[in-house]
Amino acid sequence: MVAADTAETYPKDLFDGDAMHRLAAELFPICRSITGEGLRKTLRILQREIPLSIERVPSGTQVFDWTVPPEWNIRDAYILDPDGNKIVDFRANNLHVLGYSVPVDKTLSLEELDRHLYSRPDRPDAIPYVTSYYEERWGFCMAHNRRRRLKRGQYRAVIDSDLSDGELNYGELVIPGESTEEVFISTYVCHPSMANNELSGPVVATALARWVMSAPRRYTYRFVFVPETIGSLAYLSRNLSHLKQHVVAGYNLTCIGDERAYSFLPSRNGHTLSDRAARTVLSFHYPDAISYSFLDRGSDERQYCSPGVDLPIASLMRSKYRTYPEYHTSEDDLRFVTPSGLEGGLLLVKRCLNLIERNSLYTTTCLGEPRLAKYGLMNTVGNAELKPDTAEILNFLAYADGRHDLISICEAAMITPSRALELVDLLMSAGLVQEQWRHREQAEAAGG
Amino acid sequence: MVAADTAETYPKDLFDGDAMHRLAAELFPICRSITGEGLRKTLRILQREIPLSIERVPSGTQVFDWTVPPEWNIRDAYILDPDGNKIVDFRANNLHVLGYSVPVDKTLSLEELDRHLYSRPDRPDAIPYVTSYYEERWGFCMAHNRRRRLKRGQYRAVIDSDLSDGELNYGELVIPGESTEEVFISTYVCHPSMANNELSGPVVATALARWVMSAPRRYTYRFVFVPETIGSLAYLSRNLSHLKQHVVAGYNLTCIGDERAYSFLPSRNGHTLSDRAARTVLSFHYPDAISYSFLDRGSDERQYCSPGVDLPIASLMRSKYRTYPEYHTSEDDLRFVTPSGLEGGLLLVKRCLNLIERNSLYTTTCLGEPRLAKYGLMNTVGNAELKPDTAEILNFLAYADGRHDLISICEAAMITPSRALELVDLLMSAGLVQEQWRHREQAEAAGG
Amino acid sequence: MVAADTAETYPKDLFDGDAMHRLAAELFPICRSITGEGLRKTLRILQREIPLSIERVPSGTQVFDWTVPPEWNIRDAYILDPDGNKIVDFRANNLHVLGYSVPVDKTLSLEELDRHLYSRPDRPDAIPYVTSYYEERWGFCMAHNRRRRLKRGQYRAVIDSDLSDGELNYGELVIPGESTEEVFISTYVCHPSMANNELSGPVVATALARWVMSAPRRYTYRFVFVPETIGSLAYLSRNLSHLKQHVVAGYNLTCIGDERAYSFLPSRNGHTLSDRAARTVLSFHYPDAISYSFLDRGSDERQYCSPGVDLPIASLMRSKYRTYPEYHTSEDDLRFVTPSGLEGGLLLVKRCLNLIERNSLYTTTCLGEPRLAKYGLMNTVGNAELKPDTAEILNFLAYADGRHDLISICEAAMITPSRALELVDLLMSAGLVQEQWRHREQAEAAGG
Repeated sequence: MVAADTAETYPKDLFDGDAMHRLAAELFPICRSITGEGLRKTLRILQREIPLSIERVPSGTQVFDWTVPPEWNIRDAYILDPDGNKIVDFRANNLHVLGYSVPVDKTLSLEELDRHLYSRPDRPDAIPYVTSYYEERWGFCMAHNRRRRLKRGQYRAVIDSDLSDGELNYGELVIPGESTEEVFISTYVCHPSMANNELSGPVVATALARWVMSAPRRYTYRFVFVPETIGSLAYLSRNLSHLKQHVVAGYNLTCIGDERAYSFLPSRNGHTLSDRAARTVLSFHYPDAISYSFLDRGSDERQYCSPGVDLPIASLMRSKYRTYPEYHTSEDDLRFVTPSGLEGGLLLVKRCLNLIERNSLYTTTCLGEPRLAKYGLMNTVGNAELKPDTAEILNFLAYADGRHDLISICEAAMITPSRALELVDLLMSAGLVQEQWRHREQAEAAGG
Repeated sequence: MVAADTAETYPKDLFDGDAMHRLAAELFPICRSITGEGLRKTLRILQREIPLSIERVPSGTQVFDWTVPPEWNIRDAYILDPDGNKIVDFRANNLHVLGYSVPVDKTLSLEELDRHLYSRPDRPDAIPYVTSYYEERWGFCMAHNRRRRLKRGQYRAVIDSDLSDGELNYGELVIPGESTEEVFISTYVCHPSMANNELSGPVVATALARWVMSAPRRYTYRFVFVPETIGSLAYLSRNLSHLKQHVVAGYNLTCIGDERAYSFLPSRNGHTLSDRAARTVLSFHYPDAISYSFLDRGSDERQYCSPGVDLPIASLMRSKYRTYPEYHTSEDDLRFVTPSGLEGGLLLVKRCLNLIERNSLYTTTCLGEPRLAKYGLMNTVGNAELKPDTAEILNFLAYADGRHDLISICEAAMITPSRALELVDLLMSAGLVQEQWRHREQAEAAGG
Repeated sequence: MVAADTAETYPKDLFDGDAMHRLAAELFPICRSITGEGLRKTLRILQREIPLSIERVPSGTQVFDWTVPPEWNIRDAYILDPDGNKIVDFRANNLHVLGYSVPVDKTLSLEELDRHLYSRPDRPDAIPYVTSYYEERWGFCMAHNRRRRLKRGQYRAVIDSDLSDGELNYGELVIPGESTEEVFISTYVCHPSMANNELSGPVVATALARWVMSAPRRYTYRFVFVPETIGSLAYLSRNLSHLKQHVVAGYNLTCIGDERAYSFLPSRNGHTLSDRAARTVLSFHYPDAISYSFLDRGSDERQYCSPGVDLPIASLMRSKYRTYPEYHTSEDDLRFVTPSGLEGGLLLVKRCLNLIERNSLYTTTCLGEPRLAKYGLMNTVGNAELKPDTAEILNFLAYADGRHDLISICEAAMITPSRALELVDLLMSAGLVQEQWRHREQAEAAGG
C-alpha cells in the first residue's frame, strides 16, 4: 500500500458540476495506461480529494487467466517528416502513441512507417485511441486526413518509452457504515486524454465518495479506481471471497459526464438489488433513459458479473461507450463532458443509492386504513376526488404489508422513488409504518 | 342485534330488473348517512325481501384506527333568501345538506353564507354530494347556476339536525351451504338520494341473495350491507378472524346498475379466486369490460384488502365511481340506473359465482382420448374438419388432468365459462370426467 | 412380432431429398388404412431401408377407451353408369372408396346412389378422402364437378372388400445410444394415396433413422410408424410405463414435405425439452415459421400428450394439416411434396435433435473472462469494436455458468443453435468450458 495522506483534513464542501469539471481538466493531460506513472499520478490527485489508499500489484502477478504486464512508461514520442518537421507529437496529445508501444528510434520509408500508423477514416479529423497491451508493438495514431497527406520520403519515428518490471496500481476507499454489508462502486483510470470515457467516471465517483462521507450511512461503501479489465481482475483475485460475502449492490460508473442520454446496463443476473433500484429510479425519474442488454456490455461488469464471480454490479452511464461518435478518439474531450452533464450523472447515482439505503420492508401499524385526517394528512370534507397526496399516502400504506420493500412499493403504488423517501419519513413520524431493514438474504430473495 | 322478522315466509320468486328498479325507487328518497334513522329504515326495507339481521355498533366504539361517530339525524333544513323565499330545501332533495351538518339557525350575509355553500362549477345544474363526518361543520349543497344568481342581502340558514350518542347499523345475512367456506358479498348503504352510487349495490345484492337462497349451494354465502368505510371497518373489527379463516372469494358490489360499462377492480393480491373468476368471465363474456388497477380503488375493498386483513375481495361494477360525470351529484338518479342496467349487473355477478361454485379440479377417466362417437359426442364419418363441439369437448378433456381447475380449463382451452359449465355436466354424465372439489388450500395455491 | 430382415446389411449412404421423394413415390399407390394389407406392405418397404420390426395387435384388442377394429382389405371397387361405363374406379385412385367400406354389389337409382357419394364443392376437381372406421358404411368419393354431371338412371356400385378378424400393425425401431433415456419419433402410415399427409412423415422419419444410425448418439432413439389415433393408442397401451420412464423428448412428424411453410405445434405442457429445442431452432433458423397452439392439434400428439400419458411430444411440420387447400384430397400429391421440401423438413428435425443431444450444462473453467488472445480467439490490437466472433465467444462464456443449458445459452446470448454447437467444440478443445450432460431430472426442472 502506498501511504495515503491521511493527515489531510477532509474537505467538507461537496463537489458540484464545476468542481468535477475542474478536477477532470486537471487529470486530462496525464498519460494514463493500465500501469505506469500516469496512473499513479492520477490516483495521487484523487487522494487529495478523498482518503484513497493506493495499492500495488507487481508485474508478473498471475490474476485468474491473466498476468499483470510489465509497467509502461513514456517520456516522449514524435515523427519527423522528410523535411525534419515534427508532424506527430506525443507532447501535444498523448493519444498519438499506440498504448504500450515499445521504444523505437528509426528512420524508415513512408511505406514502412504506414504499417505503424492508426487512423479512423470514419472520423478523419480525430486521433483514435489504440493500444497493444499484450503483444509487443509500436505505433502512432493520427487524424486520417493528416495521414492521407503524408508525402513519400524518409521519416524518423521516435518513441522514448520503456516496459519493465514494476507494478499495477489501483485506488481503494472503504467508508464504513452501520452494517458490514457493502455497496461497491467501481470506475476505471487507465485511459489517456479522453473525458467521457474515462474521466467522467473517476470524478463522479470522487464526488460521490465525498457525498457518502458527509452523512452516516447504513451500508459500508467501497470505492475502487482500477485500470479496466486487468485492474478489476487483479482486484477480484485479491478480494473475491470478501466481496461475495459482503457486497449487496453496486455500480460500475463509466461515460457519465455528457449531456446526451442516461443509460443503464444490467448485471448478468438482471434482478439484483442494483438492477431493481436503477430500473425503478430510471423508469420514474428518467423515462427516456436507454436500457441496454447485458450482451451490450464492455466494461468491468464483464469481470464482476462473470460466472463464479457473480457480483450484483450494474452500470450507470450517460452516453454509453461505443454508442457515441466521439468514443475512443480525441473528440471525447472536455467540451463533450460538461459540468451539468457530470452533475446529472452524479444525481442519478445518488438517487439509486438513496433508494438502496432505505429499501427496507415497511409495515402499517394498524388494520384497515388509518383515519388520515387525524394525522393532518387528509381533507375533512369528503368530496368526489381524493387529493393526489392522500391517494399517494393510501397507496403507500396499501403495500406496506411487510412483504414489499421500498422498491416494490414504488412499483406497485406508482410512487416516484424520491417521493417514496419523503413518505417514509412522513409516515414513520406519524407512527403509521414501521421499517424493518432488509438484510442481504432478503435482498437476494426479492432480487432472485 | 335488532330482531329480524324471521317468521316472514321467504318469497320464492326471484328479482328481475323491474323488481330491482322498483326497490331502488322505494329506497331513493330516504336520507341515508353512515349512521341514523335513514340507514335503519333502509335496512328494514331490505329485511322485508331477505332475512337480514340488523346489527348495532354503539357510538364511540373504537374500530381499529377509527371511532364510531355520534349518530346523525336530521328533520329539516332550508335557506330563506332576503325576500323570505325558501331557495334551498332539504325536503325537496336531501343532497342539499352537507352530510353530518351540525344544527344551525342563523341570519347571515351572502358573504358569510357563501362559506357554507358547496357547488360544482363543472356540473352547474347538479346538486353535489358532500359530507363532513369527522369534523363539525354545517353547510348546504346546491346547483352552481343557482348559487351564482344569489343576490346580496341577509339570508336565514336553518338545519334541524342533531348529533348524539346512538349507534351505527349494518345488515348481515348468512346463507349456509355444504361447506363452511364462504363467499362474501359486500355492498354499502350510507348515501342519500343517489341511484348508481349507491342503490344499485344493495338492490343487486338483495336480488343475488334471493337467487342464492333459491337452490342449494356448496359454499356458505355471507352478505353484508354496511355504511362505507366506517361500516366495513366495524364489521371487520368484529369478524376478522372468522373471515380470514373462512372466506375463499367475494365481491364488493357498487355502481352496478347503469347501462354504460362493465368494470372490474381486482383485490390487492390480484390473483385470488375472486380475481381469477371475474377476469375469466369478463374476458369471455364481456370483452369490452374495463379492468381497473387496485390503485383506482375507492370503496370498501380499501379495508377488505388492507395489509393484515387481506381478504380476497374484488369489485364488480358497471360505470365505476369517479368515472362517470353524474357521480356524487343529484344527476346520479333513477333514469341513469335502469331495470336492464341492474339486470346486466346481476347477471355478471351470477356468472362469477357460478364459476366459483364449480371451480373444481377435473380429471379424465381414461388414458388417451376417449372414442367420443361411442358417447354420441362425435360424427362417425371422418373428414377434414372437426365439428366445433367436438373440438371443444376434446379441448376440455385435454386439460382435465387433475391439475387445472375449471377457470384454468376455460383459459387453456378457450372455452367460455357458461359453456364450460355445460360441458362439466355433459362429460360427468357420460362418465368421462371426475370432479374433485377444490378446497381452500388449493384455491390459494392456484390463486397465489 | 413379424420377423424383420435384420440380416440385411445396413446401407451407409444417407437419404437425400431425391431418395426420399423416390421412396414416397413407391409408397404412393398403396391403399393404406388403419389395418390391412396396404399397411403391412408399406411397413415392409420401409423395413428394406431401416431395420424396423413389424408388430401385431389382434382385432378386438381393447386399447384404453377403444377397440382395435376388424381388418379391412379391399381388392376392387367401381361404379358403372346407366350406360355401363366405369365412371369411378378404385384402381385408378384408391381415394375413390370411403375408407373401411363394407362390401356391396348393388344396382340403384342415382338418387339412392347419391346418399353414398362424397365430394367437396369447395375443391370441385379433387377427390376427397373420407373414412368410416367405427360405423359400417359403404361409399364412394369423387370430384364434385363429376358428381354434378351424373345423369338420371340405374347405376351399379361394386365394392369387393371384407372386414374380418385380423390385426393392426405398426413398425418400431430402437437405436440404442449411450443412455437409456430416449428420444421418441412418431409418424403415421394409414392414409392412402396422399403425399404430404401422409407420406412425407414416414419418408422423413426413415431418412432420419438412417442419419441417427450413422453416428454414435447419447440418447436412445425410438421410431414408431403407426396408424394414426388407434395405432398410437395401441402403442401407448403396450408401452406406456416404459415411455413415461425413459422418453425425454420427441416429435410427431407429419405434413413435412411441401415447400410452403415451417410449422410447430407444442406439446400440451408447452415447456418440455422438445418444445424448448424446437422453439429455439425455429426462432433463430426459421424466423418465419408458424407456431400453432396446442388447441390446433390434430395428430397423434392428441394421444401422446393426453392427461396421464403426458409425453414430451411436439409436432414438427411444414404446411400443417387442415391449413393447406390440398389437405385430405387427391391434390395432396407428389407435385405438392418435393425433394427439396422433404430435405428442408428433414433438416429442421436434425437441427432440433442436434440441439437436444448437446443440451448439457456448460461451465467456464476460469474466473473472470479468459484472455482470449492467448487462445488465438481475439485480436491483440485493442480498438473500439469487438469482432463479432469475439463477442459471441464472450457471450457464450458469460452464460456458461453451470446453470444454463445449451438452449438457454442460445436464448440468453442470442447465438444460433448451429453456431452454439460449433462454439461448444471450439471452447471445449480450448479447455475453456466443461460440459455436464443433463440428465432427465434436470431437463424436467428446466422445462417445468
